[in-house]
Amino acid sequence: MTIGHPPEPGTALWVYAHPRRGSLNDHLFQEGIQELSGRYQVATSDLHAQGFDPVLDDRDLGDLAGQPGNLAELVGGAYEQGQLPADVRAEQTKLATAELLVIQFPLWWYGPPAILKGWFDRVLTSGFAYGDLDPELGVPRRYGDGGLAGRRALVVVTAGEDARSIGPRGISGDLESLLFPLTHGVLWYVGIETLDLHVVHDADSLDAGGVEREVARLRERLRTVDTTPARRFRTLRDGDYQGTRALRADLLPGRTDLGIHVAR
Amino acid sequence: MTIGHPPEPGTALWVYAHPRRGSLNDHLFQEGIQELSGRYQVATSDLHAQGFDPVLDDRDLGDLAGQPGNLAELVGGAYEQGQLPADVRAEQTKLATAELLVIQFPLWWYGPPAILKGWFDRVLTSGFAYGDLDPELGVPRRYGDGGLAGRRALVVVTAGEDARSIGPRGISGDLESLLFPLTHGVLWYVGIETLDLHVVHDADSLDAGGVEREVARLRERLRTVDTTPARRFRTLRDGDYQGTRALRADLLPGRTDLGIHVAR
Repeated sequence: MTIGHPPEPGTALWVYAHPRRGSLNDHLFQEGIQELSGRYQVATSDLHAQGFDPVLDDRDLGDLAGQPGNLAELVGGAYEQGQLPADVRAEQTKLATAELLVIQFPLWWYGPPAILKGWFDRVLTSGFAYGDLDPELGVPRRYGDGGLAGRRALVVVTAGEDARSIGPRGISGDLESLLFPLTHGVLWYVGIETLDLHVVHDADSLDAGGVEREVARLRERLRTVDTTPARRFRTLRDGDYQGTRALRADLLPGRTDLGIHVAR
Repeated sequence: MTIGHPPEPGTALWVYAHPRRGSLNDHLFQEGIQELSGRYQVATSDLHAQGFDPVLDDRDLGDLAGQPGNLAELVGGAYEQGQLPADVRAEQTKLATAELLVIQFPLWWYGPPAILKGWFDRVLTSGFAYGDLDPELGVPRRYGDGGLAGRRALVVVTAGEDARSIGPRGISGDLESLLFPLTHGVLWYVGIETLDLHVVHDADSLDAGGVEREVARLRERLRTVDTTPARRFRTLRDGDYQGTRALRADLLPGRTDLGIHVAR
C-alpha cells in the first residue's frame, strides 16, 4: 500500500468549527478566507454548516462493519477498499490536496469542540494519514513521517480566558501544553508541521473595535504564513527515543514538560 | 441563582464512550458495572447506545437561539429557564445525583472520542456545573469550587500504545499531561476530584487471557475507590495564583510542567 499524498502548491484548506453566524469566529473565518484567497486556492470545511457528523462508529467500516477486531485497523481496511462514507472521502480529498491547513475553533473545555475532534477521529484514517513500518524510511509513517507530511498548519483559537490564565504557569494550564494533543498528537503524528498558535484572548468580551483589531491581526498573520518558520517535533528517525520510546536520558535531563518533544 | 448539587451517597454514574459490542471496552464496561453494583446504585450513560448527539449548537439555547451573545452564557440562560434539550437535562439529572463518576473511553488521537467531548460541551453548562463569583466563597464557582463539588471521578482509559510511549518523557507525551484538559480542565473545573488514572496499555493486542487480567484488575480497582485518596488541584481560594492568575513565582520556581497545578 502506498501512503503519502504530495500536496498541490498554492492550495489551502480552512477547517472551521463554530456554530454561529455573526460571531467573532465567523468574522475571523470570512475575513481570513478573503485574505488567503489572494494567494491560495482555498477550500473550506465549515463543519457546522456541512452538518458534519463527528461520531465514529460501525458506519465508518463499510463491509467490515460486522467484523471483530481493532477499530482503527477496520477503518483502515475500509479506506483501502474505498468504502469509507462519502462525507469522510470528501474531507480526505480536500486534505490530500492542501499545502496549507488552517484549523479554527473556539476553545471549549480546554480543547477543540466535539465536531472538530470527530473530524480528526473519522477523517485521519490509517492508510490515509498514518501507517506502519515503511521499509524505505525504516520507521513507521508516524510522528513527522505520516501520510500528510509536507504540509503546514496554522491553528487559530479563540479563548474566553485572558493571556495569563492560559499562559506559562497559568491556572488553567498553558495553552501550548493544553493543545499538545492537537499540535503533536494529531498534526505532527500525521506529518504536519505547525506554525505558532494564533490565539485570541478575552474573546467573549471584545467590543466592535476589539473585533476589528483581531480581524486585522489575523489578516496580518495570514500574510506571513509562507515565510514564517514552522515548528517540528522530534521524529523516530532522529534516534532521540531509541530503544525505550521515551526521550533519551541525556537529552534535556530532568525535564518532564511536553516542550521536551520540540526538535532542536 | 443557587449553584451546587449535593450528591446522594451510594450513587454512581458510569459514562461510557465506545461504539462496539464485544470489544475490550464493552467487557470492561459490563463487568465494571457489575462490580460496582454491589455497593452503589449505578446509573449509566452509554453514549453510543443512546445515540447521544455531541454537537453543541443553537438547539441548545431554547428561546435564546436567535439572540446574539456569548454561547456559553446563552446556554447558561437556557439552563436557568429550564429550556435545555431533553437529552441534556437527562444527563444533568444523573450527574446531579451521582457521588462517584466513572468515565470510560478509548484514547483516540490522544484524547476522548468526539461523542464524549461533546457530552462535556453540552451537559456541563454554566449555572449547572460552574458559575461566576460566589459572594459566600469569595471566588468564582470554578477550579474545585464548581457546581459539582463533593464528587470523585475514576477515569478508565484504554490505549493502543505501550506504557513507555505515553509514560514520563514518552514520545507521544505522558498521559497525565495529555489528559490534563480532562482531569483539570473539565473535572476539577466543575469541582470533581480525580482518582489516579486507570490505564489499559497495549489495548489492541490483548489476547483472551490479557482481557481477563484487565477485567480482574479493573474489578480490583473498583473495590478500593471509596478508600483511595483522590487528587486535588490547587484552587483560587488557596492564594497560589494571587494577582496574576499564574502560579506564584515562589511556588515550585522554574517548573513549567502541568504537574505544578496539583495541590500539595
